[in-house]
Amino acid sequence: MSDARPIDAARLWRMLMQMAEIGATDKGGSRRLALTDEDAAGRALLRQWAEAAGCSVAVDAIGSMVIRRPGRDPHLPPVVMGSHLDTQPTGGRFDGVFGVLAGMEVLQSLNDKGIETAHPVEVAVWMNEEGARFSPPMMGSGVWAGVFGEQEILDKVGQDGARLGDELERLGWRGPLAADHRSRPFAAYFEAHIEQGPILEHEGAQIGVVTGAQGQRWYEVTITGQEAHAGPTPMRLRRDALVAGARVVDRVNRIGLEGGEEACATVGILDVHPHSRNVIPGRVFLTVDLRHPDDATLAGFDRRFRDETQALCDAAGVTVEISEFWHFPSTPFAPELVQRVRAAAEGFGYRSRDIVSGAGHDAVYVARVCPTAMVFIPCEDGISHNEAENIRPEDAERGCAVLFEAVRQTAG
Amino acid sequence: MSDARPIDAARLWRMLMQMAEIGATDKGGSRRLALTDEDAAGRALLRQWAEAAGCSVAVDAIGSMVIRRPGRDPHLPPVVMGSHLDTQPTGGRFDGVFGVLAGMEVLQSLNDKGIETAHPVEVAVWMNEEGARFSPPMMGSGVWAGVFGEQEILDKVGQDGARLGDELERLGWRGPLAADHRSRPFAAYFEAHIEQGPILEHEGAQIGVVTGAQGQRWYEVTITGQEAHAGPTPMRLRRDALVAGARVVDRVNRIGLEGGEEACATVGILDVHPHSRNVIPGRVFLTVDLRHPDDATLAGFDRRFRDETQALCDAAGVTVEISEFWHFPSTPFAPELVQRVRAAAEGFGYRSRDIVSGAGHDAVYVARVCPTAMVFIPCEDGISHNEAENIRPEDAERGCAVLFEAVRQTAG
Repeated sequence: MSDARPIDAARLWRMLMQMAEIGATDKGGSRRLALTDEDAAGRALLRQWAEAAGCSVAVDAIGSMVIRRPGRDPHLPPVVMGSHLDTQPTGGRFDGVFGVLAGMEVLQSLNDKGIETAHPVEVAVWMNEEGARFSPPMMGSGVWAGVFGEQEILDKVGQDGARLGDELERLGWRGPLAADHRSRPFAAYFEAHIEQGPILEHEGAQIGVVTGAQGQRWYEVTITGQEAHAGPTPMRLRRDALVAGARVVDRVNRIGLEGGEEACATVGILDVHPHSRNVIPGRVFLTVDLRHPDDATLAGFDRRFRDETQALCDAAGVTVEISEFWHFPSTPFAPELVQRVRAAAEGFGYRSRDIVSGAGHDAVYVARVCPTAMVFIPCEDGISHNEAENIRPEDAERGCAVLFEAVRQTAG
Repeated sequence: MSDARPIDAARLWRMLMQMAEIGATDKGGSRRLALTDEDAAGRALLRQWAEAAGCSVAVDAIGSMVIRRPGRDPHLPPVVMGSHLDTQPTGGRFDGVFGVLAGMEVLQSLNDKGIETAHPVEVAVWMNEEGARFSPPMMGSGVWAGVFGEQEILDKVGQDGARLGDELERLGWRGPLAADHRSRPFAAYFEAHIEQGPILEHEGAQIGVVTGAQGQRWYEVTITGQEAHAGPTPMRLRRDALVAGARVVDRVNRIGLEGGEEACATVGILDVHPHSRNVIPGRVFLTVDLRHPDDATLAGFDRRFRDETQALCDAAGVTVEISEFWHFPSTPFAPELVQRVRAAAEGFGYRSRDIVSGAGHDAVYVARVCPTAMVFIPCEDGISHNEAENIRPEDAERGCAVLFEAVRQTAG
């Protein structure tokens, strides 16, 4: 690598800050829920930058946006960078956005240096990664990779009652490109992303070389006891759904704590019915999220979670229903691309470490049908899905430089 | 007692069933939230029965309704029976309603038998006992007893945004009577009520002779941790507010279980923020309700709850704020009136037992300024604050007969 500063860090940061103004929140975060006017405004801004850089912009049938810089050989499949511009309801300024704008910066830097590549180089903006307004998450990449059917996704109804397909039409995002990896394959896919966890910062690493993604199992649990007045009902006669639910929360946490360094176990939602100060809760709904990079270990968590939840609820005299909402096997990334990321970081003299992605990313679906790798950069205190999410400009620069180098080598 | 059947049980049951039709719910309960059109319709029906029985009907300045049967001496203060007609959002057909209609039945039975009393005999329908639409509960009796200021209560705003005073005006319930025990004292107060717990049924008792009410301490607890992404945040670096909250729920339950037969400890509300499947909860709000008939024991619960909650939260790396929302000392009832209830049950040959009220009742505020007693009847499975709340007609008859006899003796 002849050039120690292959990209324009100031331009990248300007793009990040300008994008953050769209849907900016009082607490310094961003709110651009998928397929809202704010999401559309974010894409319109990106389109301006892409067109100013001489790239073509198109949209696929499920609303994912594609920015293309031609290669020497139009018959070769593209080398693609990408991520998403949509956010959580009280989201940060970098989750997803960094990967898209780092990709845009790579295209501009290739222009600046007059580099011709054999393959076309593209930036993909995947539709609805977050899954906050429309569930499940990672819809655009999921349809392209064949995980979801196109019609199934078009018919999804959001939390606000809107149909996804109608919102695509309203925004003019139902495009002509096929949302299908078979008719529109990639040569390779790279996604740069903030870590969304504290490991890199904690260990003083500047670049995370992502070797794959954790397996995930998501559950919905409904516990039913007996609603009764909190005063005159003796403790020993109660069937309190919340007491049972609380023990399940603690047990899920223990499964995570005892599951080794790479285990994660979280209850993110817990709803109490009837939700009155002086009524013993008769019903509790809660969600469970178990993760581990090794599928066999995760299967062990699954068994332990089911058995111990059942036992805790039996002991509390309440009934329980457990349903698996989502199962996501662990995903190893393409070793030769992972090595290219590792070598690029080394070449620049950055401190890097291998890391497994604990979060879901578009890359995880893409990896099912195409060689894939990811580049992580540290984020402040590991905080993400939070308006306080933050990164340092020098980390943005390092991540983008590694992306540039890995893409340049791959695109030939 | 010469008459083994002093009241008309069939008439009482008809009144109960007719009242239950107002605001009837699909699941067999009642919904007559305080100061709604349904609440007004319930009172209008009662007014018809009262006027048909030759009684006068008036309303006080805070919207409590008073039905009066004159005594021989108009200068004597009244002997009052009472309870409430308002319900929980998904309430039962008997909570409160039984005490009001048993009182109405006593007035009619006094008429039937041509009994003259020295004191006037009244039925009070207290405004907003449940506290479901407008908080706190027991407002009408609380203002009358001087616990709350009249203006303070008029200015309360309900969950639906309505101002209480405006609703009183709208319904025409801001009456001319003083809502003040000093200008309108009672000679004695009796409240018949369903037990709202399982003890009487469990022990085969037909009448509960209520010797007083438990002390209650209500708290609001806010636990603050660190919101973060559920995937990439290692277990040992988490500050999960829900895990800490779950341990507090379990500990509150243990304080109740270890506190002896008469202890109650309940978490009725628990809210999780930000409430997303894959975000570690950063904040939890929960309510705690501790009860015991002995104030010193309850003070011990208070210390244990505060100390152990603080310790659990410290250990979990989260911060906690505990505020006492409501403190209600235990209330002994008037021994001579309690004995009159006990003797009446014995006289009819009913199986009775002494019992402490675990729930708040209007009688508990009234008892602060006037001799008071309560009569409990069993309710099916101890279930209350629930549409499935149920009683047997023979239990209604027994409770009303005891009320009749205790009032007849007290009114002279």
